[in-house]
Amino acid sequence: MTSPTGLFTDHETKAIVLLSGGLDSATTLHIAIERCFRPVILTFDYGQRHAHELEAAKKIAIALGCRDHAILRIDPGLFRGSALVGGEIDVPRGRVIDESIPVTYVPARNILFLSHALALAESLAIHDIFVGVNSLDYSGYPDCRAEFLEAFERMAALGTKTGSEGRPVKIHAPLIHMTKAEIIREGLRLGCDYSLTSSCYDPAPDGEPCGLCDSCRLRQRGFAEAGKRDPLLDRYYYS
Amino acid sequence: MTSPTGLFTDHETKAIVLLSGGLDSATTLHIAIERCFRPVILTFDYGQRHAHELEAAKKIAIALGCRDHAILRIDPGLFRGSALVGGEIDVPRGRVIDESIPVTYVPARNILFLSHALALAESLAIHDIFVGVNSLDYSGYPDCRAEFLEAFERMAALGTKTGSEGRPVKIHAPLIHMTKAEIIREGLRLGCDYSLTSSCYDPAPDGEPCGLCDSCRLRQRGFAEAGKRDPLLDRYYYS
Repeated sequence: MTSPTGLFTDHETKAIVLLSGGLDSATTLHIAIERCFRPVILTFDYGQRHAHELEAAKKIAIALGCRDHAILRIDPGLFRGSALVGGEIDVPRGRVIDESIPVTYVPARNILFLSHALALAESLAIHDIFVGVNSLDYSGYPDCRAEFLEAFERMAALGTKTGSEGRPVKIHAPLIHMTKAEIIREGLRLGCDYSLTSSCYDPAPDGEPCGLCDSCRLRQRGFAEAGKRDPLLDRYYYS
Repeated sequence: MTSPTGLFTDHETKAIVLLSGGLDSATTLHIAIERCFRPVILTFDYGQRHAHELEAAKKIAIALGCRDHAILRIDPGLFRGSALVGGEIDVPRGRVIDESIPVTYVPARNILFLSHALALAESLAIHDIFVGVNSLDYSGYPDCRAEFLEAFERMAALGTKTGSEGRPVKIHAPLIHMTKAEIIREGLRLGCDYSLTSSCYDPAPDGEPCGLCDSCRLRQRGFAEAGKRDPLLDRYYYS
């Protein structure tokens, strides 16, 4: 992996980057660095079934030499009714991926993540937040659409001190209109080590992906369309 | 105190009510009950200097027979640069209260509180959130204005499942255009026991108000304008 760290240690303009540990947010982190921001990384522990992604997030941050990385806890009790939290509802495997909102939707998750990022941004006088949402391959999630992000930005401009003083926070969603294949190509161009990332909604204890949930399948399709091999295949031999 | 609990135990429509333990949110809780909602109360422990208000919130909820009361933790590390968190900046005493944003502003606090409420609302299929913000006596806080709340509602409608399915959450801010004196009169009419509330930004360990911070002075002025005596005076003899 080519780490851009050495090139960018002099960057002075910080940006908050939301890093789940998945493919999209890892790519977004590389894009933030390429755009000359010094990342302050936020990762959330909200009792997700796939807590393995927290370890992935740590490895990705370390590999890029990012020292500013906080893992914040959000009470899992807020997220009832989601297959990704609490273990009461199974993660669907092999379902038809359509435009409906799947049971893996987590109530108001991106709103909470962005609100935490916004508070930290104001506290640290940071004016840029990067988030890896992407409307094309996740059209079922309402909080992954451009209209939502624009509305969040407007709300944040009105509801914060920096916003009301004329320096609102900008939400960067560089992947918003990209397909999974385009994201993967861009990440590979930037040297992203996808073997460190974790996408599966319901991995084995060692992180081995199930290969059948929506997230695994979108990832597989993305690598196939990009004409690349997923390095996780070599790591876990899951296919 | 007249507790309305006995009258309202049959209410079926739940609403999330944000309760800090202060005068405004206690009044808002009474208004939510009067409007026939069954309250699900959220209080936040965010490392506030005036953590005494958490005890006040518990007492208020208990006095009203509200059993659904969660105290959620938000990492205090998010809120740097505020006099209300961390102890690095003193709470101003006796300052001129004007339209500028005071150092007691907490970055994106109401955005975070409302985002937590929104997640829980979606999880529990609740469509109403009550918040005690009030623009008249806190004009310095950008997140206490009607424009902000409208923008939050719009953002929430776009970014949630319930919102995108046509049942958006409504944010009720019944105090938004009331003066402190009007709030107090309304609360007293509804039987609110203000001796249980805590307003001071920097109280003594036993909860005795300083009497000099913005919040104490707005409270004193409110009671004076309402022609009522603050029951905290009898409790703490602070004036």
